Amino acid sequence: MPPSATPGRKFDKQGSPLSRRKATFLFRCIGCGVLTPDAAQHFRCSQCGNLLEVTDPSWKSPGLNADALKSIWLERRCSNSPLDLSGVWRFRELLPTPESAEQVISLREGNTPLYELPQASRRTGVSRLYGKHQGMNPTGSFKDAGMTVAATFAREAGYRWVACASTGNTSASMAAYAARGGMCSLVLVPDGKISWSKLSQALDYGALTCQLRTDFDGCLRLLQELVQRAPVYQLNSINPFRLEGQKTLAIELLEQLNWRAPDHIIVPGGNLGNSSAIGKALLEMLELGLISRLPKLSVIQAEGANALVRTLREAGGKQLVSVQPETRATAIRIGNPASWEKAVKVIQATGGA
Amino acid sequence: MPPSATPGRKFDKQGSPLSRRKATFLFRCIGCGVLTPDAAQHFRCSQCGNLLEVTDPSWKSPGLNADALKSIWLERRCSNSPLDLSGVWRFRELLPTPESAEQVISLREGNTPLYELPQASRRTGVSRLYGKHQGMNPTGSFKDAGMTVAATFAREAGYRWVACASTGNTSASMAAYAARGGMCSLVLVPDGKISWSKLSQALDYGALTCQLRTDFDGCLRLLQELVQRAPVYQLNSINPFRLEGQKTLAIELLEQLNWRAPDHIIVPGGNLGNSSAIGKALLEMLELGLISRLPKLSVIQAEGANALVRTLREAGGKQLVSVQPETRATAIRIGNPASWEKAVKVIQATGGA
Repeated sequence: MPPSATPGRKFDKQGSPLSRRKATFLFRCIGCGVLTPDAAQHFRCSQCGNLLEVTDPSWKSPGLNADALKSIWLERRCSNSPLDLSGVWRFRELLPTPESAEQVISLREGNTPLYELPQASRRTGVSRLYGKHQGMNPTGSFKDAGMTVAATFAREAGYRWVACASTGNTSASMAAYAARGGMCSLVLVPDGKISWSKLSQALDYGALTCQLRTDFDGCLRLLQELVQRAPVYQLNSINPFRLEGQKTLAIELLEQLNWRAPDHIIVPGGNLGNSSAIGKALLEMLELGLISRLPKLSVIQAEGANALVRTLREAGGKQLVSVQPETRATAIRIGNPASWEKAVKVIQATGGA
Repeated sequence: MPPSATPGRKFDKQGSPLSRRKATFLFRCIGCGVLTPDAAQHFRCSQCGNLLEVTDPSWKSPGLNADALKSIWLERRCSNSPLDLSGVWRFRELLPTPESAEQVISLREGNTPLYELPQASRRTGVSRLYGKHQGMNPTGSFKDAGMTVAATFAREAGYRWVACASTGNTSASMAAYAARGGMCSLVLVPDGKISWSKLSQALDYGALTCQLRTDFDGCLRLLQELVQRAPVYQLNSINPFRLEGQKTLAIELLEQLNWRAPDHIIVPGGNLGNSSAIGKALLEMLELGLISRLPKLSVIQAEGANALVRTLREAGGKQLVSVQPETRATAIRIGNPASWEKAVKVIQATGGA
């Protein structure tokens, strides 16, 4: 029996108390804090123009304590239901959820391994060093964790087209989830300096791909104009649903560490959606009592694409210092990171760098 | 407490009855059937020269019934021990096991998703069609499932060097497991027509790589001479430990299908190690009562590298019909498949094609 056929238990076959949570959430502006039920097409605050994030007051419902969450998340590892097999939706109590479980577009993303790295540990002099292998996602990158959530909401909202600007990973991921969900996808690709192997994935999945004579930031600007004029859903990382899915990277990491927070989490930073998502997850896990202290969250950038580094050093994190990006690491070749304010906020909140 | 510190329970933290199984196994010649405890360096029968396979009489011990196995394998999905997190070692009752669990070199291989493929299903007219995404392995291919077992036994036997001939996937996998296990690795690469992105993985993991003016089959011949003269352990698919690990692809598949055997399993065939391994697993699962009937196992080859197809059609599977291989699918560009007899055996046993 599909979960949606059970009145009042819309999203969980297990019938646990957690499943009675209503799938309601709001968007909150990260600038002025205003709450709104609708993020429109541009995911920006109608008052101040800043980015929106998902906020979910239902966490604070009485049934949701840390021990209950840990236990239900563990139990789901033995389940064969598609939602539980996903390393994202397994943690659905901390995610916005669609009306019905059948709306979810999943390719069994997440569930990526955490490796202890003894050789790197010896060389760096760090006593315990771990790496989380995000390449073990369906399309080969961490983008899948966010894409399953954002693509689900795109389809639930009735969109037939989704689109992104991309240097590679995002387009591969978006095209896969769009194909899985029966939607069409449009990829805007900058001129040169992109990952051809990643782009060929997007082409394989049937994405309509346009290469433009501009860089990533130019593609993103054009996309934002496009989504105002046509019924196309934007799946770049300013889409707050993507960040919600990417939060599960951090939740899964903490579960793998038996909920003992590490001293420090270090992530590479491009458009800064991932660091923002991980930071948001850490703050939420602390609030829920899933962890007892915050790890530092730090972001590494290439010297030639160090907008966040300069934003923090030269402007104290108060305004974006854009750069003309130049690095061989195509996935972080971004000079004007969309989520810079979210990233500054979480770096400062966790004491990272 | 490490498992090896518990006398009589060498390989399982759970302390279940299954863990008392002794890690003993023999090799059986697939030609003359002779049993031997030692496979030497060439993995061939000292009597008739045919390939060896691992045989494990301990399956037939009284504690090992199908229901107990299914239940312990399911329980392990909730465990965080490295062995249980591996989609290969989780099924260790059907594998040869080293003396101590600490000897295992694992990168959390296996655990790959099974996708229902509705679009391909509609186009082909097959009512239910599934694909198992073996790319979601640590180095991106199914080779990892076998490599964790073979690399473990290489190190346990005291080897400091491992080697393979490879068109790509095997070298990437071998180099990763060798690096993880603190061993050196040597890759013999044919001239052209190989996967550069795969080879660059091997180089990243520190493999010594030699390109030879010959094809894959020539590299394999040279390797077999080399291992007779130097203390180098051969990790090509004639290594029977690799096939043991690859058996778990089929075991995991059947678990994902709730132990209901599908009508047909179709795999691509190059050196034919994978089809041999899957076939061996199917026969063993039937013998143990894990499944009640055999699915057909069929092998697909490229038209330009169809040695097995011709072996079955032109020689009735009785002798190998070699071909001069030519296909853009580099991973199956093999004209003289080492495991052809094993593959013929399982195709005929399951009624495949």
